[in-house]
Amino acid sequence: MITMNEHYLELQASYLFSEVARKVAAFQEQNPDTSIIKLGIGDVTRPLPPSIVERFKEAVGEMGDAATFRGYGPEQGYPFLREAIAKYDFGARNTGISPDEIFISDGTKCDIANFQELFSTDVQVAIGDPVYPVYLDTNVMAGRAGAYRDGRYGKVRYLASTAENNYIPAPPNEPVDLVYLCFPNNPTGATATHEQLRAWVEYARRERALILFDAAYEAFIRDPAIPHSIFEIDGAEEVAVEFRSFSKTAGFTGTRCAYTIVPKAVRVYSRAGEPHELHALWNRRQSTKFNGVAYPIQRAAEARYSEQGRREVEELIAYYLENADIVRSEIDRMGYACTGGDNSPYIWVRTGGSAWEFFDQILTRAGVVVTPGLGFGPSGEGHVRISAFNDREKVIEAMERIRSAL
Amino acid sequence: MITMNEHYLELQASYLFSEVARKVAAFQEQNPDTSIIKLGIGDVTRPLPPSIVERFKEAVGEMGDAATFRGYGPEQGYPFLREAIAKYDFGARNTGISPDEIFISDGTKCDIANFQELFSTDVQVAIGDPVYPVYLDTNVMAGRAGAYRDGRYGKVRYLASTAENNYIPAPPNEPVDLVYLCFPNNPTGATATHEQLRAWVEYARRERALILFDAAYEAFIRDPAIPHSIFEIDGAEEVAVEFRSFSKTAGFTGTRCAYTIVPKAVRVYSRAGEPHELHALWNRRQSTKFNGVAYPIQRAAEARYSEQGRREVEELIAYYLENADIVRSEIDRMGYACTGGDNSPYIWVRTGGSAWEFFDQILTRAGVVVTPGLGFGPSGEGHVRISAFNDREKVIEAMERIRSAL
Repeated sequence: MITMNEHYLELQASYLFSEVARKVAAFQEQNPDTSIIKLGIGDVTRPLPPSIVERFKEAVGEMGDAATFRGYGPEQGYPFLREAIAKYDFGARNTGISPDEIFISDGTKCDIANFQELFSTDVQVAIGDPVYPVYLDTNVMAGRAGAYRDGRYGKVRYLASTAENNYIPAPPNEPVDLVYLCFPNNPTGATATHEQLRAWVEYARRERALILFDAAYEAFIRDPAIPHSIFEIDGAEEVAVEFRSFSKTAGFTGTRCAYTIVPKAVRVYSRAGEPHELHALWNRRQSTKFNGVAYPIQRAAEARYSEQGRREVEELIAYYLENADIVRSEIDRMGYACTGGDNSPYIWVRTGGSAWEFFDQILTRAGVVVTPGLGFGPSGEGHVRISAFNDREKVIEAMERIRSAL
Repeated sequence: MITMNEHYLELQASYLFSEVARKVAAFQEQNPDTSIIKLGIGDVTRPLPPSIVERFKEAVGEMGDAATFRGYGPEQGYPFLREAIAKYDFGARNTGISPDEIFISDGTKCDIANFQELFSTDVQVAIGDPVYPVYLDTNVMAGRAGAYRDGRYGKVRYLASTAENNYIPAPPNEPVDLVYLCFPNNPTGATATHEQLRAWVEYARRERALILFDAAYEAFIRDPAIPHSIFEIDGAEEVAVEFRSFSKTAGFTGTRCAYTIVPKAVRVYSRAGEPHELHALWNRRQSTKFNGVAYPIQRAAEARYSEQGRREVEELIAYYLENADIVRSEIDRMGYACTGGDNSPYIWVRTGGSAWEFFDQILTRAGVVVTPGLGFGPSGEGHVRISAFNDREKVIEAMERIRSAL
C-alpha cells in the first residue's frame, strides 16, 4: 500500500489569503464600478528592461540555429552568468565569493524550499514571526515542526519581530541549528545593520548553526551603511548560505531566474560530529534533481549586468522605491507608525488593534487591497503589509483614496 | 549543531561516467587528430523548430511591454498550455485526462525526483535494472534504499530487465508500494504492450501500489499497436502518474519544459488506511516549493501543438528515428542482438562479456563513444547503449568506423 508523507496533514491551509480573496470578490460584486487597486501582492508590474529583452530574443534565436543550439547545460548554471554575478554582486564588496560557489536556479522560492532536504529531520529550526510562509511550510512537510496549536508549531523556534525590537530579532539564548533570516525583510521591510548581522554570525559560529539568508530584496537598499550580503560579515562564509533573485530587481517574477551562494568553507555535521562540505551536498542535490535554467534565460539574466542593463535595473528599483516613498509619507501623514519602504519595497504599517478591521475599512471605503499581517504569523496581528510593486498612478490614487477614507 | 541528511552518504558516486570521460580524454590526447564521435549521450542536437522559435521570441517581446507583461504565473502552468496538452496528447486517445490534471514544470527529471517526497520514507520501492539513475538516487537521499552492497541497495526491489524477459519485467510476486516504469525505456529502448502494462496496472490496483510512469520517449513510438500513455489502460487513472517532456520531442533539453499528469482519481493512504487525493498533495507541493515555468517558455511549448509545430516536431522525431534505423541495421549486420531503435532513440546492444571491453574496442579502434550498460545498473553488464541523438552525417560515419574496426 502506498502510504503518504503524513506531515502534509500537519500543514495549515492559509485561510487568510483565501479570506482576502473572498472579501475582495464580495466587495467587487457589490461595487461593480469601483476599480480596486491591489497593493497586497509582492509581484512586479514593470516590463523587462529593453537590454534584457534584446539579449533574451537573441539567445532564443541561437537555439533555432544548429550552429549555436544548446542542449543540456550545467546543472549549476553557465559560467558566463556565475562569473557576472561574482563580479558585479560580490566583487565590489570584497566578500570573496567565487563563481563556483554560485548556483543558478529557476527561483529563490524553489532553492530555499529545497535546501532543507540536506539536513536531518530533527534539526531545530528558527524562523521569524512574521515570516515568508515557505520557510515554515517546507519544514512542516519534512516533519521538523511538531504539532500545531494556537497558531504555532510546537518544535519551531519563533523569533518575534515586533515594534519592541524594531522588527529585528536577536539570536535566542538557547541553541538552534537552522536559522532563516531575511533582510530587507518580507513582510516587515526592516533592514539589519552590520552589528545585528554580526551577532547572528557569531551565534551561528558558536552553536555550529547554519544561517539561510534570504537577500531577495537587497537591491532596494539605499542606505550605504546597510549590508547587502551576509558575506559582508567576517566569518559568515563558514556558517551561511545566501539566496538572491532576478525577480524583484530585473522584473523576472514571470521569467524565473535566481541564484544561491554556498561557500565552500561551510561545514555541516554527521551525528558523530564529522564535518562535511555543504557545497558538495547542494551540488549533489542539484545534479540529481535539477537540470539547470534555460539557456536564453541565463543570457537574459546576464544582460542585467551589462552597462545598459545595470542602468535600467537601477531605474526600475528607483521607480518602485519612489512608490514606496509615496506610500510611506502618506502613512506617516495619517499618523500611523510604520517600518520599511525606505530600503525595501514593503511598508509594514502598525495599525494597532485588529488588522482585519483596518483591511476592511480601506477595502470598503477606498477600494484598496493590502495584506493583513496575520497572514505571515501571529506577531503580524495589528499590522498590514503594503507593497510598492505597482504602477505609479495606481499607487498615487490608492493613497489618495485611503487618505480621504480614513 | 546543524546535522546533515546522512542518507546522502549512502549515495554511490558514479565512477562509470567519470571513467568514460577519463578514457575519452586519454584517447583524445594520444590521438589529437581523431575527431571523436559521441553516441553516448541522451541529448538532442537539432535546433528548436522555426515555429517554436518565432512564438518564443514573440512572447519575450510581450514581457518587454507594460501592456502585455506577465509576473508570477500559476504554479501549475498556464491554462493555454495545459489545454493544448490535454487536447493533442491525450484527447485523441480517450484517456479522459483533463487540463487541471496536468502540471507544467521545468523538467521531468525535477518532477520525478521531487515526486517521492509525497510518500512515507518506508514505502517499498521497485525500479528497473538497468534504470535511469535518478529514480534510485532520489530514493537513496530520502532514506528508502537501505545499505549498499555488491552493487545493490538492500531495501530496493530491482526488476531485472534482461534478454530473458525481452527487457520487460513482469510485476513481482511480493507486494511493493511505489513502482517506477519507463517505456520506451531508457536505456534499453524496449517498449511495453497493452497487455504488459495491463499486468502492472492490475498489480497496482490489487496491492494499492502507485506507478510512476516515465513517458519521456513516447513520441518515438511508430508502431500503432504500442500504447503511448499508461492511461490507455483502463483503471490506470486510479493508480498511476505519468511524466512527459518537451525535451526529446521539440528539442527542449536546453529550454526546460515538461509536464506531469496526476489524475484526480489517484488515492494514496495514511498508515491507518484512509485515502487521500494525490492530486491535492502534488498541488500543495508545487504551490509551496515551485513558482511555475517562464511565460515565454510556456508559449514556446504551446507552439509545438500548432499545425506547423506538430509537423516540425514530427520531422525532428523522424530524423532521430532514421538515425536509429541506421545504427540498428548496422548492429544487426555485425551480428549483435539488440533491442530498441525501432520505437525509441536508444539502441541497447548485447555485446556479451564485458561491456568495458566493447567500449574500449570501439573507442580506440573507431574513435566512437557509447555508454557501457553497467552505468545503469548491474543487469546492464554485457550491453552498451547507443544514442541516436546526433547529426546524420556523424551517425553514418560512426557506424562506418565501427564496421571497419570490428
